[in-house]
Amino acid sequence: MKLSAVLFLSAVSTVLAGNYISNLSFVSTSYVEMTPLKPLNLSAFTLCMRVATELSGEREIILFAYRTQHYDELNVWRELDGRLSFYLSGHCVLFKTPELGPMETHLCFTWDSSSGAAAVFVDGRKSLTKIYRKGHVIRSGGKVILGQDPDAYLGNFEAKQSFVGEIGDVNMWDTVLSDSTIRDMFNGKKVERGNVFDWESTQLRTNGDVVVVNREL
Amino acid sequence: MKLSAVLFLSAVSTVLAGNYISNLSFVSTSYVEMTPLKPLNLSAFTLCMRVATELSGEREIILFAYRTQHYDELNVWRELDGRLSFYLSGHCVLFKTPELGPMETHLCFTWDSSSGAAAVFVDGRKSLTKIYRKGHVIRSGGKVILGQDPDAYLGNFEAKQSFVGEIGDVNMWDTVLSDSTIRDMFNGKKVERGNVFDWESTQLRTNGDVVVVNREL
Amino acid sequence: MKLSAVLFLSAVSTVLAGNYISNLSFVSTSYVEMTPLKPLNLSAFTLCMRVATELSGEREIILFAYRTQHYDELNVWRELDGRLSFYLSGHCVLFKTPELGPMETHLCFTWDSSSGAAAVFVDGRKSLTKIYRKGHVIRSGGKVILGQDPDAYLGNFEAKQSFVGEIGDVNMWDTVLSDSTIRDMFNGKKVERGNVFDWESTQLRTNGDVVVVNREL
Repeated sequence: MKLSAVLFLSAVSTVLAGNYISNLSFVSTSYVEMTPLKPLNLSAFTLCMRVATELSGEREIILFAYRTQHYDELNVWRELDGRLSFYLSGHCVLFKTPELGPMETHLCFTWDSSSGAAAVFVDGRKSLTKIYRKGHVIRSGGKVILGQDPDAYLGNFEAKQSFVGEIGDVNMWDTVLSDSTIRDMFNGKKVERGNVFDWESTQLRTNGDVVVVNREL
Repeated sequence: MKLSAVLFLSAVSTVLAGNYISNLSFVSTSYVEMTPLKPLNLSAFTLCMRVATELSGEREIILFAYRTQHYDELNVWRELDGRLSFYLSGHCVLFKTPELGPMETHLCFTWDSSSGAAAVFVDGRKSLTKIYRKGHVIRSGGKVILGQDPDAYLGNFEAKQSFVGEIGDVNMWDTVLSDSTIRDMFNGKKVERGNVFDWESTQLRTNGDVVVVNREL
Repeated sequence: MKLSAVLFLSAVSTVLAGNYISNLSFVSTSYVEMTPLKPLNLSAFTLCMRVATELSGEREIILFAYRTQHYDELNVWRELDGRLSFYLSGHCVLFKTPELGPMETHLCFTWDSSSGAAAVFVDGRKSLTKIYRKGHVIRSGGKVILGQDPDAYLGNFEAKQSFVGEIGDVNMWDTVLSDSTIRDMFNGKKVERGNVFDWESTQLRTNGDVVVVNREL
């Protein structure tokens, strides 16, 4: 059986012509690889994105995957029960939040190794803080992809875990941003650009059958 | 059976290094005592805090407890049915409000003895005003604790009434603040510091197994 | 059977002592009469107020009543099914809106005879426009009351239609204000004072057992 899935990726640019979004649509065997600005050797991070999906019910959805040769270094999920989670090579940390849906939601995940403090921000509102993987370090040398869960190094995708919907404005920092910076970002104000991923300048390597659509912001 | 509960307390500071939150986690037999800036001899108050909890269903949660030798002078609750309430040594005043949940909520409780006017503000929005305990005065000489309901003077805690989640930014004034001041506070603007409790400078005496986490505001 | 109901009315004043609210509480046989600044001979209006109520379920609630000897010139209701409505001596115009509830809601009703355009603004957001009573004129010479539905000229009240909750900041203009002015008003900004009713200076004639409470805005 062939299962086809559509993923929209939004690439934001502020070049002379003004802001626009590039939408990319592809089938479930396709994915997009993002090239980081620096190695992902991280003892803290803030990872933000804008997400909209019409998927509902009991369906896992992968939102972000960073995998080295043998480990899922940082995987971000919407779990079967609707909770958001991330995994740092092992068990996950789970957050009860308002459900993702067809209207665009702004998400930021933060984690700091020194305290283990982990949180998620949904449309600028902070969740409960969880203590998770204190002292751990994310290792460099892997690949970041959107849209698929790589159970091996860039391969072994499963259509029923793929993302179907729209992801964009994906930015990452190697520090924990302040609450007010994240609220400003949700509200569309300019904040410091991501130093790990900067969506305005990031290189997207698309794999598979991809359609690009531009939309002015 | 041993029931363990986690409480996060957020201590905000604006010292030179910038704003940050100190989170404290402890088990259900632990609590935090707050030292006031002045005796709690009060004929009016505004009590504010930020709260997040994943507790749901039919569960009482104590948010703030001020007890003298024989009286629960001021106890603030989330009741079994989800309503917010406070007690001034006796029956309570109840407010229907949006439910507390896992995303951070800003709460302010106000009361004025001269009129009996009592209200709660949820994320800057005022509830219905209730008339409650006109002419009453809160007595000084007790202890304020977060996380437990002291049925005796600093003792007799019940795990099933304890707070599980995150409380922070707890400030108290001996007057009723204006609606616009409370809205500004919710929006993260600077307002006059609490003259009964000022979270930026308050002394927290933690009892039990406590973990501290700092986070930039 | 005697049914007692509590109504809080908020009278705002900006006299030297600063802004404050006067709350009035009374039983269901009581009401408040408002004295207009000019006769209510109106071919257009904007009527605004702040409302909070814990009433829910299938219950009609009268929010504003202007009646001449034989006609209900302008009655504003929350209908049985939760919709908002107003009546200009005859059938009503209905609006689907977010439900009124225990947290304070800002309402504005607008109507213009020349086009028949009628709308309601809930917390600054405009409803669908309806065409209603084009060419009609509201007649002067009646009485405006809050809290009761006068089926006769200042009499024949029904407890089950009375308002139970809090109404305040009631202002009225003989023109249709702009969307941005109404949004500013919701956000607490200063706008031109009502020229039919100005809550800051309006004379309230209370009838029945009334308690007054002051609160700073």
